[in-house]
Amino acid sequence: MTQGQHFTRLAGGAAQPAGHASLRRTNLSLVLRHLRDHGSSSRADIAEATGLHRATVSNLMAELLERRLVREVGIEHAGTVGRPRRAVALDGAHVGVLGLEINVDYVAVHGTDLGGRVLVERRVGFDAMGSGTNHSLRELGRVARQAIDELTRAGAGPSGLGPGDLAAAGASGIAAAGGGIRVAGIGVAVPGLVDVGHGVVALAPNLGWRDVSLASRLSVALGDVRAPVTVDNDANLAALAEYTSGVAAGTADMVYLTGEVGVGGGIIVGGRLLRGADGFSGEVGHMPVDPGGSRCGCGRSGCWETKVGLAALVRMATPDQAYGMGTTPVPDPEERVAEIARGLAGGDPLMLAAVAEVGRWLGLGGSILVNLFNPRVIVVGGYFATLARWLLPFAQAELEDLVVAGPAARCRFVASDLGFGAASLGAANVVINQLIDDPTAIGSPPVRLAAPQPTAT
Amino acid sequence: MTQGQHFTRLAGGAAQPAGHASLRRTNLSLVLRHLRDHGSSSRADIAEATGLHRATVSNLMAELLERRLVREVGIEHAGTVGRPRRAVALDGAHVGVLGLEINVDYVAVHGTDLGGRVLVERRVGFDAMGSGTNHSLRELGRVARQAIDELTRAGAGPSGLGPGDLAAAGASGIAAAGGGIRVAGIGVAVPGLVDVGHGVVALAPNLGWRDVSLASRLSVALGDVRAPVTVDNDANLAALAEYTSGVAAGTADMVYLTGEVGVGGGIIVGGRLLRGADGFSGEVGHMPVDPGGSRCGCGRSGCWETKVGLAALVRMATPDQAYGMGTTPVPDPEERVAEIARGLAGGDPLMLAAVAEVGRWLGLGGSILVNLFNPRVIVVGGYFATLARWLLPFAQAELEDLVVAGPAARCRFVASDLGFGAASLGAANVVINQLIDDPTAIGSPPVRLAAPQPTAT
Ligand SMILES: [Zn+2]
Ligand SMILES: [Zn+2]
Repeated sequence: MTQGQHFTRLAGGAAQPAGHASLRRTNLSLVLRHLRDHGSSSRADIAEATGLHRATVSNLMAELLERRLVREVGIEHAGTVGRPRRAVALDGAHVGVLGLEINVDYVAVHGTDLGGRVLVERRVGFDAMGSGTNHSLRELGRVARQAIDELTRAGAGPSGLGPGDLAAAGASGIAAAGGGIRVAGIGVAVPGLVDVGHGVVALAPNLGWRDVSLASRLSVALGDVRAPVTVDNDANLAALAEYTSGVAAGTADMVYLTGEVGVGGGIIVGGRLLRGADGFSGEVGHMPVDPGGSRCGCGRSGCWETKVGLAALVRMATPDQAYGMGTTPVPDPEERVAEIARGLAGGDPLMLAAVAEVGRWLGLGGSILVNLFNPRVIVVGGYFATLARWLLPFAQAELEDLVVAGPAARCRFVASDLGFGAASLGAANVVINQLIDDPTAIGSPPVRLAAPQPTAT
Repeated sequence: MTQGQHFTRLAGGAAQPAGHASLRRTNLSLVLRHLRDHGSSSRADIAEATGLHRATVSNLMAELLERRLVREVGIEHAGTVGRPRRAVALDGAHVGVLGLEINVDYVAVHGTDLGGRVLVERRVGFDAMGSGTNHSLRELGRVARQAIDELTRAGAGPSGLGPGDLAAAGASGIAAAGGGIRVAGIGVAVPGLVDVGHGVVALAPNLGWRDVSLASRLSVALGDVRAPVTVDNDANLAALAEYTSGVAAGTADMVYLTGEVGVGGGIIVGGRLLRGADGFSGEVGHMPVDPGGSRCGCGRSGCWETKVGLAALVRMATPDQAYGMGTTPVPDPEERVAEIARGLAGGDPLMLAAVAEVGRWLGLGGSILVNLFNPRVIVVGGYFATLARWLLPFAQAELEDLVVAGPAARCRFVASDLGFGAASLGAANVVINQLIDDPTAIGSPPVRLAAPQPTAT
C-alpha cells in the first residue's frame, strides 16, 4: 500500500512540504533499487516499473547523477519499439561501506563499494575477552581506519586492485573506480544483545561488555570520516549474509548458528530477519536444555552453549588440557580446532566420541529451533563448519529423532562456506541497504569532501 | 509494491485478459477492506484512499452491491467541501462463516457473519481421544451442521438474536440481517501439525490422528453447504484471535500458549503469524527441556508438555489419583482444574507446591521462547489462564531469571480472557479474511441458494 500511496500523492501534485522530502527520498531509493536489482535501464523502463511519471524519473535521475550514484551507459535498443534509448546504471564505485566484527578472539573487516564489490577483507587476531572495553574499542578503531585508508586508495584507481577485481566489477555492472571513494556508512557486528536503535551493546557476556555505546564511541574515534555507525548482533548479520550470498542463499526460512566459544543464532523468517520486540531475538546459546547441567559463562546452568560451544568440545576432546567448566576462555581457538580436526582425521577415539556427543547436543538444540521455526535449513558457521563432516551426521540424526514433525519437516544442517567473514560481510550488506533506502544520507559527492563543510539540505 | 503495480496496470488500461480477473479480485478486496477498516465511506473517499479511478470504484461498487456485500447508507456531509455525497458500508449480514475446533475432550464452534458479529457460540464435551477418527469427524460434522442451521435462522431476521446483538451490530456498522444468510466458508482448528495447503492433519498425537484429509472429508459430509473448508493448527488460530481481539490485541510480537493436556504455541512476529517452511512452526509442547525426564505422549522423553501439560499438574496436585506418566488421558479435565482451583484457594500445600513446580517449568520454557523470539507478551490460555493467579507469579520469576536479556526483554505472562473459544474464533476470523481477500469466492447472493445451481463464473 505504501508505494501506491506515494504514487498517488505524487501524481496528484498535492504533496505537503513536510512530506515532500520523505517522498523524494522514497522515490530516489525506488529508482536506485530498481537499477541494482535489474541492471542498467532506460528512464522509460524505470517509469513503467516503478509507476512514477517520466518527468519525475528524469528529475530524480538528475539528482542521482549529480550525487554520482548513477551514470549514463550510452545507447540501448529497446526490444519492442526499436527506438534507441539512453540507459543509466547504478554507479557504486564512488561510495564505500565498512563492515566490522569484533569477537572473542579477533576483529574482522570487509570494505566494499555501494555495488557490493569487496575491496578490503581482513581478519586480525585480538584477545577482546582479555583486553577490556577501552582497549577493544581502540583496536576496532585502528582496524577500521586502516581499512578506510585502503578503501580510499582502492577507489583512487586500479592501482590498489588486481585486474581480476576490476573485471568482476565490470561484470556486475559497476564502473571502475575513478575519482576517489568516500566511506558513507559503517556497520559493526558484536556477539551480544544490541539495542540497534541506539547503537548500544546492552550485554556481550563473552566480551565482558555491558551498556557500551559502541556507535557513538566509534563515531567519535573516526570523527573526520563522518560516516554513521550501525551496530547489530553478529549472528543476525551473518544470517543476512547467508541469506544474500551463502550456501543456502534465498531460502526464505533459515536459521544460522555461529559456532565459536559462544553460540549465537540469526533467524530468517519468510525472507526477513527476525528481530523481536527489542532486537534481542535469536539468543540460542543460553536456551536451558539441561537444568542439572554445568555452569555457563552467563551464570546460569545447562545452557546449550555449555554443550555445543567450543569450550565444551575442547574440554571433552582434549581433557588433559582442562580449562574448567562452562565457556571459560579457550586459548588459540583456531589452533585447537585444527588440532581436533587432525585428531579426528587420524581416528582418535576420544575425539570422535567428543564430536559425537557435541553433535547430538547440536541436534537436540536444533530440534527446538525446528519445532519452533520450521526452517528448511540450519546453516552452521565457525568451528561447526570446520568440523562439519564429523559433527553434522550426529546432529542430523538427533534432529530427525527429536523434531515432532520428524522427517516431514525436511530441515538439513549445512556448513557455511562464508568462513569467519560472514558477520562483517553481513554488516557491510546492511549498510549498503540502508544507503539505498535513503540515498540522501550518502551526502555530498566525494570531491567536495577533501575540505568538509556544512551540508545545506 | 504489489498495490502500486496493480494501480499502474489499471491506470494504464493495458491489463491482459489473463491478469484481469485477478486484478479485479484484488480491487474488489481493496474496496471491501477499506470499508471494513474505516467504516462507511463515499466512493470519492475510497478512490482517494485506494488510488483507484473514480469510475473504477463505481464499477467495483456495482458488483459489490449486486453481491450484497455492501449497501448504500444514504447521505453524508463531507467536511471540507460541504457537498452532500452518498456513502456505502460493508454489509456482512448476508454471509456467514463457521469456526470449529476439535480438541482432546471437546468440539467448539463460532458462527459469525462477514462483519465478525458472533451469532453462534458453543462448546460440546466430546472424548475425541477415545473415539477414533471416523467417529470424531461425524461429531464435527454434526456440530457444524447444527451451527449452520442456527446461523441460517439467525440471518433470517432479528428473531434469533437478542436486541443487544443488533445494537452491537449497528454500532459496528453492520446491517441487521434481513434476507437469509449463507455460510461461505468454514475454518477448523486442530491440535497438531497441519498441512494448510491441502487441509490435511499430518499428525495430531493427542487425538491419535495421522494423515487425516480433514478439509475434503468435512466438505463431503457437508456436501450441500458448498463452503470451502480451511484447516489450521489450534494454537496458530488462537494466536490470531488473541492478536485481533484478546487481552494483548495488536501487540506485534506475541506468543500464545494453549494450556490443556497438550501444550501448543502460536507465534506472532511483527504482526504476522509465523508459519515456517511447511506450516509446522510453534510446536512448543515437545521441546526437549529435560533429557533425563519422563516419557511423553509423543514417545520422546522430557518434552516441555511432560512438565506443564495438564496431566503433569494433575499428577502432582492429586497424586492419589495417578494416571501414569506423561500425557496420558485426563478424565474430565475441566472438573480436575476446578478441583485444583478450589484446593489452591483453600491453601492445600500439596497443590500449592505442584502449581509452583509447574509455574517454574512454564517460566523455563517461556525463557526459551523469549530468548528466541523476544516477544513483548506471552498470552496463556486453557488451564494456564484458569489458574493464572497461582501459576504466573512463579512462571514470571523463573522467566526473568533465565532470559539472557533479563528484565530488559520486558516480556510478561498474561492470562487470555477468550476462554476455550479462542481457536474457533480465530478460525472464523481467518475465513473472514480469506473472503475479504477474494470476495468473488463468496459466490452468488444467498437468495439464489435456496435451490443450489452451478455457478457460472
Ligand atoms: Zn548461559
Ligand atoms: Zn513429546
